[in-house]
Amino acid sequence: MPPRRQAAGRPSMPTPLRSFDDLAVGQEFDFGQFRMELAEILDFAHRYDPQPFHVDEAAARASPFGGIIASGLHTQATAFGHIIRTGWVKDVSLGGTEQTVRWPAPVRPGDEIALTARIEALHPSRSKPDRGVAKVVYTGRRVADGVVVLEILGTHFLRR
Amino acid sequence: MPPRRQAAGRPSMPTPLRSFDDLAVGQEFDFGQFRMELAEILDFAHRYDPQPFHVDEAAARASPFGGIIASGLHTQATAFGHIIRTGWVKDVSLGGTEQTVRWPAPVRPGDEIALTARIEALHPSRSKPDRGVAKVVYTGRRVADGVVVLEILGTHFLRR
Repeated sequence: MPPRRQAAGRPSMPTPLRSFDDLAVGQEFDFGQFRMELAEILDFAHRYDPQPFHVDEAAARASPFGGIIASGLHTQATAFGHIIRTGWVKDVSLGGTEQTVRWPAPVRPGDEIALTARIEALHPSRSKPDRGVAKVVYTGRRVADGVVVLEILGTHFLRR
Repeated sequence: MPPRRQAAGRPSMPTPLRSFDDLAVGQEFDFGQFRMELAEILDFAHRYDPQPFHVDEAAARASPFGGIIASGLHTQATAFGHIIRTGWVKDVSLGGTEQTVRWPAPVRPGDEIALTARIEALHPSRSKPDRGVAKVVYTGRRVADGVVVLEILGTHFLRR
């Protein structure tokens, strides 16, 4: 049997999954891009991460970052909202129980971030035959220079 | 030399750290509690995680969750904002580069969550003598029944 071509080909745009069983390990998806706006960076940080280098322009300039940077939690949440809004998992998502997130480089106001995904692992549930667990690595790269600014290893429970 | 009493005693309320070197592996802290309000759950989810069981009361009732649950990203962010607002790391924080977060049980509107922390590991930076990396496990328990609803393994860069 030949390998599934999806896994070896170019990343595809996500279309709504019908089932956990639509996925294959190694598949890659291109989620397009999103932009981190200053007003949202400040708003999120005031609510959820009010550190000076996220909320105070003068303090941020004087910090090692040299200016306002987005809360990593904000970049993570914005990427996740972007993923959800594509509709990729809207018919099959049963939530998730774990994420590991890394922020290898700071995100600054106005940065555009291109998001891709790769299916890392697929585990049909033993106790619940109506679902499976998909482990997905999402990678966010700053469009301007390709630098990776976000990596999320996400866990999705998906209907089958 | 006797063991550091802090590590063996009752969890203490966090007071502002003066240095990375104030910390010891095994120290535990009591961060008090916070409450997840329905209006904020809906607002966060509309922005960052618009799945039916986070934003649509009728759809949530019909889902396996039986009602609205908070986005895990929202619980994570609210806990982190709560930590930052205690002032614990305000004089020493240089941000962080990684978190692993787990949501072992759903969080519902009105839930109060008690947050504690334990210092897991401390690594002075080899390349930058002005800082160290603290690995901290934060645990959120629903006050009503003690069930763990949130675990964050966080990484903090701290001045020394």
